[in-house]
Amino acid sequence: MQIDAALDALSTVLGQRLSRSKSDLDLHGRSETWFPLSPPDAVAYPESTQEVSQIMKICAAHNVPVTGWGTGTSLEGQSLAVSGGVVVDFTRMNKLLAVHQGDMDAVVQPGLTREELNEELRATGLFFPVDPGANASLGGMASTRASGTTAVRYGTMRDNITGLEVVLSDGRIIRTGTRARKTSAGYDLTGLFVGAEGTLGLITELTLRLQGQPEATLAAICAFDTVDDAVRAVIDTIQMGLSMARIELLDTETAKAFNAYAGATMPESPHLMIEFHGSENGVKEMAETFGEIIADHNGHGFDWATRAEDRNALWTMRHNGAYAIFAARPGWKSLVTDVCVPISRLAEAVNDTAADLEQAGIYGPILGHVGDGNFHSVIMFDPDDPEQMKTVKAASERMVDRALAMGGTATGEHGIGMGKLGYMEKEHGDGWQVMGAIKQALDPENLLNPGKMVPPRN
Amino acid sequence: MQIDAALDALSTVLGQRLSRSKSDLDLHGRSETWFPLSPPDAVAYPESTQEVSQIMKICAAHNVPVTGWGTGTSLEGQSLAVSGGVVVDFTRMNKLLAVHQGDMDAVVQPGLTREELNEELRATGLFFPVDPGANASLGGMASTRASGTTAVRYGTMRDNITGLEVVLSDGRIIRTGTRARKTSAGYDLTGLFVGAEGTLGLITELTLRLQGQPEATLAAICAFDTVDDAVRAVIDTIQMGLSMARIELLDTETAKAFNAYAGATMPESPHLMIEFHGSENGVKEMAETFGEIIADHNGHGFDWATRAEDRNALWTMRHNGAYAIFAARPGWKSLVTDVCVPISRLAEAVNDTAADLEQAGIYGPILGHVGDGNFHSVIMFDPDDPEQMKTVKAASERMVDRALAMGGTATGEHGIGMGKLGYMEKEHGDGWQVMGAIKQALDPENLLNPGKMVPPRN
Repeated sequence: MQIDAALDALSTVLGQRLSRSKSDLDLHGRSETWFPLSPPDAVAYPESTQEVSQIMKICAAHNVPVTGWGTGTSLEGQSLAVSGGVVVDFTRMNKLLAVHQGDMDAVVQPGLTREELNEELRATGLFFPVDPGANASLGGMASTRASGTTAVRYGTMRDNITGLEVVLSDGRIIRTGTRARKTSAGYDLTGLFVGAEGTLGLITELTLRLQGQPEATLAAICAFDTVDDAVRAVIDTIQMGLSMARIELLDTETAKAFNAYAGATMPESPHLMIEFHGSENGVKEMAETFGEIIADHNGHGFDWATRAEDRNALWTMRHNGAYAIFAARPGWKSLVTDVCVPISRLAEAVNDTAADLEQAGIYGPILGHVGDGNFHSVIMFDPDDPEQMKTVKAASERMVDRALAMGGTATGEHGIGMGKLGYMEKEHGDGWQVMGAIKQALDPENLLNPGKMVPPRN
Repeated sequence: MQIDAALDALSTVLGQRLSRSKSDLDLHGRSETWFPLSPPDAVAYPESTQEVSQIMKICAAHNVPVTGWGTGTSLEGQSLAVSGGVVVDFTRMNKLLAVHQGDMDAVVQPGLTREELNEELRATGLFFPVDPGANASLGGMASTRASGTTAVRYGTMRDNITGLEVVLSDGRIIRTGTRARKTSAGYDLTGLFVGAEGTLGLITELTLRLQGQPEATLAAICAFDTVDDAVRAVIDTIQMGLSMARIELLDTETAKAFNAYAGATMPESPHLMIEFHGSENGVKEMAETFGEIIADHNGHGFDWATRAEDRNALWTMRHNGAYAIFAARPGWKSLVTDVCVPISRLAEAVNDTAADLEQAGIYGPILGHVGDGNFHSVIMFDPDDPEQMKTVKAASERMVDRALAMGGTATGEHGIGMGKLGYMEKEHGDGWQVMGAIKQALDPENLLNPGKMVPPRN
C-alpha cells in the first residue's frame, strides 16, 4: 500500500473533500455495535460517479483498500476499513435523480436515505417500502441486502432494485439491470452486487421499485401470555393467506424496556405489532379475520391504531427497540443476533433462544420480523469483562447452529461484516469458496472492503 | 475433447442410461424454434445428484462439454449442445422430494415439470405460481429465469426460489440459500445460478416458494378498438394499485389466429385477458374497479369467466397462443421476440413494433404479459427463403434497439441461448465482460454449455 502517493493524487482530485482530520477518521472508524475503533487513513467525499471512478483508479494504482460508507448504521461493522486505506463516504451523493410515476420507480444516488426519499415521494402517491428501522442510506441498504418490518409484504432490497450503476475495482463503470420490471438477459449482476457489502464494487446509482401508498392502513398491538401463543398466531395468519404489511414480535423483556425507555404502559408480556395495507374494505376484512386468529391464541388487550399519528407512534416505538434495550444497560455494548428460520420452526427457535440466554445469565431481549421467521436478540454485555464477552459470543454461535440445523440462516438482514464472517463456512460449505472465486474474478487485487465476506486469500 | 474415453467411463457409471441412438441424439438436437439441428455426442440420464457429479467429473477429466436438458421447451436454443459433448437429460430426476406446508415451500428435483408439481400439490391448498405456458421442467425454468402470465402478481423464477443444489464444473456439489424466507449471508449465489442457463453449474435440486390457493378467482376477457386503448387500460389498472394475478394482451392478428386454431369466435380486435385472486369480496371489489377502468378506455364485450372450466379454457387458449400462430403459417419457422420495457413506454413500443412489422411485410402477431411491460411478436418466416430470414432478423434487432433506448431489455423471460447472444454487449456494455469473468472463475475450462451467454474466450 503506497498510501502517501495515493492521498496526494486523491487530494488533487478532491481538494478539501479528502479528509484526514482525526475527528473524521474516528467517526468513520466507529460502528453501531461492539467492534473496536478502526479508523481509515482518509475519508473521501465524492460528488459524482466519475469521481468515484477516479478514486478507485488512483487507489488501484497504489494498492490502497477502498471501503464504502453510507450512514454507518450497519450492525456488523460492514463499513469499517479494517485493513486501512480510504473510506468513500457517499453523503454528498444523495440526490433523487428521477421519479417515473407511470413506471413506479425512482433513480437515486447511494447517499440518499430512505426517509429522505419517502419525504420527497410524499406528494406522488408512491413510497419506497423497505424499512430497516434506522434511517439508512439506500446504497448501504442495498449493500447489506437490508429488509426490516415490511419485508413480509414488500420483500427485501433484493426484490426492490431493478438496476444499479457500479464502479468496479479497476474504476470501470457498469450498469446492471434496466428500468423494465423483469429481465432474463444474462447473469443477475444486480442481485450479485446487492448484499455484497462493497466487496465487488461501489454502488453509485440505484433504480428502485416504488409502491402505491395504500388507500387504507390499519395497525394494532396485542398482548399474549406466551411467545409460543404469539408465534402460533403468526403462523396461522400466514397460512390463512392474510397479506400483512408488517408483523412484529416483542418478548416480555422488550416490553419492559419500552415501558422504561419510551414511557409506554404495556403489559409486561409478549406482544405482536401488526399492520395491514389495502382498500378500506380489504383492510377491515383482514382485521376481522386477524381478530379471530388472535382470539384462538389467547391474545388480549387488542388495540387498533387507525389514526396516522397513533400508527407512527407505534412504529417509532418499535424502531427504537434496540435503543430502548441499549438504554437498559448504560455503558454496556450490544451484540445483535439475526437468525432467520423456516416459519414452522420459529416458536421452537425463539423458545430455545430465550431458554439458552436465561441459562447463560445473559440479558438479551428478543424482537423480530416474525412473518419472515427472522428475529433478533439484542444481547447486552459489559465490554470490560472479557469472560462475559466470551459467554455472549458462545451463545450467539449456538443460536446460529440451531438456526442452520433448522434449515435457516445466520443472518436474515444484517449481513456478514466482521461479526458473522466466522459462520460463513458453516452455512455455505464449498459455496463459500465459490464466493471467494467470484471475489477473485472481480477484485483480483483485493482492494474492495478487504477482510470481509470471503475466505482469506492464501 | 477426448469423447470416446469419456463415453466409455460414462457407460460404466450409467449403463443403458447413456444413450447414443440417432433418434435420441436428434431429439436432443432440436429446439422449439428456428435453430438448426445440433445433436450432441451422447445423452446421459442421471438418477441422482451423485451421478450428475460423477458425469461432470468424467467430462471434466476428458474436456467434454456438458449441457443440461429439461423438457426442451426453451425458445432460444438454450439446451442445444452447439459444441457437441454430453447432454444431461434430467427426465429421471423428477421427484417432489418434500412439501413443507407450514413453511409454504417445496423441495423438488429439476426434471419435475410445473404441471406435475401443481398436480401433486392440489390437495395441500398450495400451488406454485410461475407459469410460462409450456409445461416446462422446474430446473429449466430456473435456468432461463422464466416467468409468464402470473409474474405481475407472483414474480419470476428469481423471486420464487429460496435455495438450490448445484453441481459445479469440477463435480463439487454445493447448496445455495436456505429454507428461510430471506438471508443476508453473503453473495446471492441462488440468484446467480437462476438465469445462468447451465453455464455456471447444473441445478440438481430446488427449494421453491409456494402460494396459498386463492379463496376466489375471477377471470375475464375484453375487447378494445385499438392496442393503445388496451395498453392504457393496463397502465391505469397498475397505477390504481389493483393486484392482478394475470393481465395479458392479444392483438388483432392473434385474435384471428385463435379463431382459426381454437375455434374461438372472438371479435377480430385487440383484447385483454385478466385474472384476479383474493377473497370473495376482494375479487368482486377489484372486478368492479377494473370494469370502470375498461369503460374509460372503450373496452367492450366484457366476459367474466367465474367457473373453473371457463377459466381453464381461457388460459388454455392463451397458452396455445404461439401454437395458434405457428398453425397460421404451416411449414414456416418462428422467431419469438421478447422485449420488456418500462410500462410507461409500452403502448409506444407495441405500436412501433406493429408498424415496423407491417412495413417490413412480416407476419408477427403480438401477445404479451403487459402488466410487466413484456410482449412477444411471434414472427413467422419461410426457412427456405434466406432473404426473408434476413428481413426477420433485422426487424427483431430493431425491436431490441427500441427497447434498449426506452430503458428496457432484449429479453423479459425467454433468456439468451443462441438467439440473443448478439444483443448482450449492446445491452450490458462492460457488464458483459463482468459476466465473462464470473464464468471464467466458476468454469475455467469452459465445459458448461459452451458457446452461450458470455463473450467468447480469446
